[in-house]
Amino acid sequence: MLIQNTSNSLVDTLRQRRQKLASLIDFPVILWSGNDSPRNYPANVFPFRASSHFLYFAGLPLPNAVIRLEAGFLELFMDDPKPSSALWHGEMPRREEIAEKIGADVAKPMVELELSVEGAATIAVQDAGTWTQQSQLLDRLVLPQIQPAGIDLELAKAIVTVRLTHDEAALAELRKAAAVTVEAHKAGMAATTSAKIEAEVRAAMEAVIIAHNMTTSYNSIVTVHGEVLHNEQYHHSLQPGDLLLADVGAETEIGWAADVTRTWAISGKFSSTQRDIYDVVLAAHDACIAKIRAGVEYEDIHLLACTVIAEGLVDLGIFKGNAEELVEMDAHALFFPHGIGHLLGLDVHDMEDLGDLAGYEEKRERSDRFGLGYLRLNRPLRPGMLVTIEPGFYQVPAILNDANLRSKYHNLVNWERLSQFTDVRGIRIEDDVLVTTEGSEVLTAALPNQASAVEDLVGG
Amino acid sequence: MLIQNTSNSLVDTLRQRRQKLASLIDFPVILWSGNDSPRNYPANVFPFRASSHFLYFAGLPLPNAVIRLEAGFLELFMDDPKPSSALWHGEMPRREEIAEKIGADVAKPMVELELSVEGAATIAVQDAGTWTQQSQLLDRLVLPQIQPAGIDLELAKAIVTVRLTHDEAALAELRKAAAVTVEAHKAGMAATTSAKIEAEVRAAMEAVIIAHNMTTSYNSIVTVHGEVLHNEQYHHSLQPGDLLLADVGAETEIGWAADVTRTWAISGKFSSTQRDIYDVVLAAHDACIAKIRAGVEYEDIHLLACTVIAEGLVDLGIFKGNAEELVEMDAHALFFPHGIGHLLGLDVHDMEDLGDLAGYEEKRERSDRFGLGYLRLNRPLRPGMLVTIEPGFYQVPAILNDANLRSKYHNLVNWERLSQFTDVRGIRIEDDVLVTTEGSEVLTAALPNQASAVEDLVGG
Ligand SMILES: [Mn+2]
Ligand SMILES: [Mn+2]
Repeated sequence: MLIQNTSNSLVDTLRQRRQKLASLIDFPVILWSGNDSPRNYPANVFPFRASSHFLYFAGLPLPNAVIRLEAGFLELFMDDPKPSSALWHGEMPRREEIAEKIGADVAKPMVELELSVEGAATIAVQDAGTWTQQSQLLDRLVLPQIQPAGIDLELAKAIVTVRLTHDEAALAELRKAAAVTVEAHKAGMAATTSAKIEAEVRAAMEAVIIAHNMTTSYNSIVTVHGEVLHNEQYHHSLQPGDLLLADVGAETEIGWAADVTRTWAISGKFSSTQRDIYDVVLAAHDACIAKIRAGVEYEDIHLLACTVIAEGLVDLGIFKGNAEELVEMDAHALFFPHGIGHLLGLDVHDMEDLGDLAGYEEKRERSDRFGLGYLRLNRPLRPGMLVTIEPGFYQVPAILNDANLRSKYHNLVNWERLSQFTDVRGIRIEDDVLVTTEGSEVLTAALPNQASAVEDLVGG
Repeated sequence: MLIQNTSNSLVDTLRQRRQKLASLIDFPVILWSGNDSPRNYPANVFPFRASSHFLYFAGLPLPNAVIRLEAGFLELFMDDPKPSSALWHGEMPRREEIAEKIGADVAKPMVELELSVEGAATIAVQDAGTWTQQSQLLDRLVLPQIQPAGIDLELAKAIVTVRLTHDEAALAELRKAAAVTVEAHKAGMAATTSAKIEAEVRAAMEAVIIAHNMTTSYNSIVTVHGEVLHNEQYHHSLQPGDLLLADVGAETEIGWAADVTRTWAISGKFSSTQRDIYDVVLAAHDACIAKIRAGVEYEDIHLLACTVIAEGLVDLGIFKGNAEELVEMDAHALFFPHGIGHLLGLDVHDMEDLGDLAGYEEKRERSDRFGLGYLRLNRPLRPGMLVTIEPGFYQVPAILNDANLRSKYHNLVNWERLSQFTDVRGIRIEDDVLVTTEGSEVLTAALPNQASAVEDLVGG
């Protein structure tokens, strides 16, 4: 349990967050931190991860704790460790001590929680032990698979409003996560030419994160098969002509995430075809970031990426026709089938436990268009939002060999020209971008993304 | 999903394991592999870990798969990936292909499982999604927290019988895990003198494990507070006079574990007091391993460790009196409060999901003696069993400051002499030992444990 790096400013921050929430709702809120999830047997658990909503308002990753918020008044419920646990887990901070650190007004043992559940809203926590307890105490089904309803839905919307833009304390953590992530990617690049399999590059990257006493914010992708979007295999050997795609991010001790992707050549040097496509993806990346500022629709950023990619592929002779028309026909999604990015905060897809409540502006819904359906964020940008910008180019067999898609887009693609790009299976470039009133700030700007700068970092 | 390094010999091994099981029971068995456990939101999951019982009989870490065994006949139930999943997860092996790899006689879609559940026994899997499914299909409560009963208990006992000793295929994996773990510890030692906090040493160790495309078999302990037995904090700074205790083990891709502890000086060189205690712990370690052979009671190994430690502490003037008598009075547990070790296999505490069914010989129960209660294994040793030997010395404040214990053992401890050993908070030396007919084989013998050899590896 982490309580060392707290301070009065933490208390102030948490108080402000709780007051913001109190200004939006008029019912009590109970948030559980959650408990360990078992791995292969009950005592062998995955590393504990507190619920993000709890972390946001309580600030510390306390296992098996509960906060109750009402009109800015904070009660902490948790049990003091049993005396016998000191043998195995050492002297743990006591309830009163923790209450002080997070600015709780009252601290009570867990058994008293059932006296205070009347009329309270909550958000489902992920582990079964805890959502069982939530359901029992609140006398209704509280399950991570069920979208919230009633006051739980009102609470979810209020939390989205508060968490959608980041305060200074959050940004300080997000910058820390970004800085360590930048260092991890540099270490991965530097380790590549001497590595034999993907796992060795992953090790170099995650070692940086672990050494900073952080964890990965999601399961790392470090793969020569970048065309498999969520590839979590690391056993492939590194071949000189191939690209390596690394999507790896750090998460700070109190839960704030980074999410960064770079793609580099295993030999250090891009082939001319790889470089051509890389520059197309980078152009989309740069155009999107240049366009970001408060008020701009994120969907327009996405469409801009699609257009720049289509344009680049026209220039390379892969697409035939006009970029705008190609995008209108969703042809870009043949090679860029996902969204341009998502919210980033305590979760790498921030608040995705609430479905599209956070990502989608009220009354907007996911499109069923091939080129838009995977967009995770569709809101006008606001100062203090943190988003990823992650354009990509992939040759996904499941798409390019799909008979329907192939016939639909047959005349728009120069398939023969495309066949010259077989050494480009997947490229993505992803940075974490803070929206400001005037424009944006790239939190991960310290990690180069120009092809030649990346080549320099890989060496070889 | 891992299917690359399989072979005909895997099929043979699995068939033999299933035949052994079939010879012990006369009812059908259904084993679930389990599914992902969510971390902070449903799509952000912990790395998948298949159930150990499934892994033992099916050999591959397949998510969301089921095997049904009856009289040596094997049915595999799993769904082929949806076409849409190819975009995100790539082309996955199909059911028929996997059935062939594991030697299944039949392969069926999951929906057919409900036709074959009649009279079948099972073991609860850890993730809630799966034990819910187990309970529904078998129409009884199947929960990891509930000890098995009826045919489930019969199955558990039969599985214990089969898994208690390791076949050649298992040993090959266990040796791989041991070898990588040895390398990880060497890397940790080498990284220490230039590291500033515990996390940096942990990073060096886990990087070795990740680089071999393995995972840790339990949450690593890398701490200057070795007296906290299950310490999972890594933020403490490394001070030159302190010891570092590292309990870190690798797990192979198909689930087989290692479990190794070394303790070394942060400066590289033990102080004379640290060295004195280290040599006591090592003497216990060596005496235990020398005594291991088929037929010996593991409890006697534990008591031997207690005696050697008590003896060493008498020689150092910390204990007063006679070693055997001290152990009879449980005085050793003031400084060595845990058991000498446990079974090791697919789980780091092998089959601990079955409570003490695996660890304790039928009709034996845990002692409530202070010096024996934490013993996890109490059986006569048999050839092919793999056990850990992990004696230790700790100054646990919760024990040494306990008023009852202090008064009970007041005259047996020279407290003034003890106060000269404040720079020894916790020492443990742990190796993985295979029981043979003639004696034993230390799978982790390549990692030195002599004080001077450890000093050489740390350098500084
Ligand atoms: Mn992303
Ligand atoms: Mn152990």
